[in-house]
Amino acid sequence: MADNFNVSNPVIRRLPRYYRYLSDILASGKTRISSTELAQRMSLTASQIRHDFNCFGGFGQQGYGYNVQQLTSEIEKILYLDKKIPAILIGVGNLGKALCSYLENDAPGINLIGLFDKQPELCKPSSGLTVNHIDAIADFCAERKPKLAILCIPGDDAPKLAKKLCAMGITGFWNFSHVELEVGSVAEVENVHLGDSLMTLGYKVNSIK
Amino acid sequence: MADNFNVSNPVIRRLPRYYRYLSDILASGKTRISSTELAQRMSLTASQIRHDFNCFGGFGQQGYGYNVQQLTSEIEKILYLDKKIPAILIGVGNLGKALCSYLENDAPGINLIGLFDKQPELCKPSSGLTVNHIDAIADFCAERKPKLAILCIPGDDAPKLAKKLCAMGITGFWNFSHVELEVGSVAEVENVHLGDSLMTLGYKVNSIK
Repeated sequence: MADNFNVSNPVIRRLPRYYRYLSDILASGKTRISSTELAQRMSLTASQIRHDFNCFGGFGQQGYGYNVQQLTSEIEKILYLDKKIPAILIGVGNLGKALCSYLENDAPGINLIGLFDKQPELCKPSSGLTVNHIDAIADFCAERKPKLAILCIPGDDAPKLAKKLCAMGITGFWNFSHVELEVGSVAEVENVHLGDSLMTLGYKVNSIK
Repeated sequence: MADNFNVSNPVIRRLPRYYRYLSDILASGKTRISSTELAQRMSLTASQIRHDFNCFGGFGQQGYGYNVQQLTSEIEKILYLDKKIPAILIGVGNLGKALCSYLENDAPGINLIGLFDKQPELCKPSSGLTVNHIDAIADFCAERKPKLAILCIPGDDAPKLAKKLCAMGITGFWNFSHVELEVGSVAEVENVHLGDSLMTLGYKVNSIK
């Protein structure tokens, strides 16, 4: 059972990938898998996989391997995907719209409850949610108590807004702005720096001899 | 001077972040900066910064610090941002559109030359480029020789398409599909697994006591 394990950061970072692979394997109709086969598919070693799953008490049976359904559902619980974190999205431009559509259709563990923009009249997300003016955000947070904020706004505005949002009860940021947020230990931040990712790729492509 | 340095992967991964900070510092009008101050701003140590820059021959002067303009432009050269890699984008949905707009306005080191979709008639990117049918991609690659492909398509289609694109001369993939590509050593792959990032954040937010 998944409950209060003390898990290292690298293992946590690997869990979504396990979840992704196992969900696909489950969807393909396969009911059990050995650590060797799972390792092969994921370009890991079998002992790495056994080590990772042992952090949570281990789920396999000698000679049988893993029950795919059970393993997937345990990882789901460990990642709290059976809960839905109430989230708001700020900045409903193209990227914001793309994320809206993703969050409403595919994203696990998230319940998008509010959209905000400086110019809500210019935003037409395909989403069922209406876009509110950014000035309405404090009242919204007081009433609906979102925990997670998705920032799709320009870098300059992000750090100040993040501090305000912390004071409104936000404890997690999915940060697409190109600056880092300084929120100390008050909130968790997951940065998606697309520019950094693209520059790294460009370097590698240019370095191919 | 930036030329053929043998740089480790972790240093390369840090370079875009240096570039991002230094560009902002340069834009703010500051002309020189000490390793100590740069370290403070970036939450690194000064010795880490000196070590990283020494991989490229070092750029600082004892007692003066770094010339911000010169350092920025050296990192620009190291990252090949003065060159523009010809790139195509495949899958012009909301995410594809968001990336188009980013690539045409802000993205360094990339020249977006073609857009492709299965249903080009349904896509209206704000971009100046027209959206071509995916079937036209082989001819396009033969003629225009793009080097980098941005994949914004569903997971199931991505691995097969990636293999075909390698045969058409693509040597780098910016992969937004939720599966991993198996292209061996033929091409470089940079994955942006948004779901993994979100699940990691969700885990952390849920784990806050």
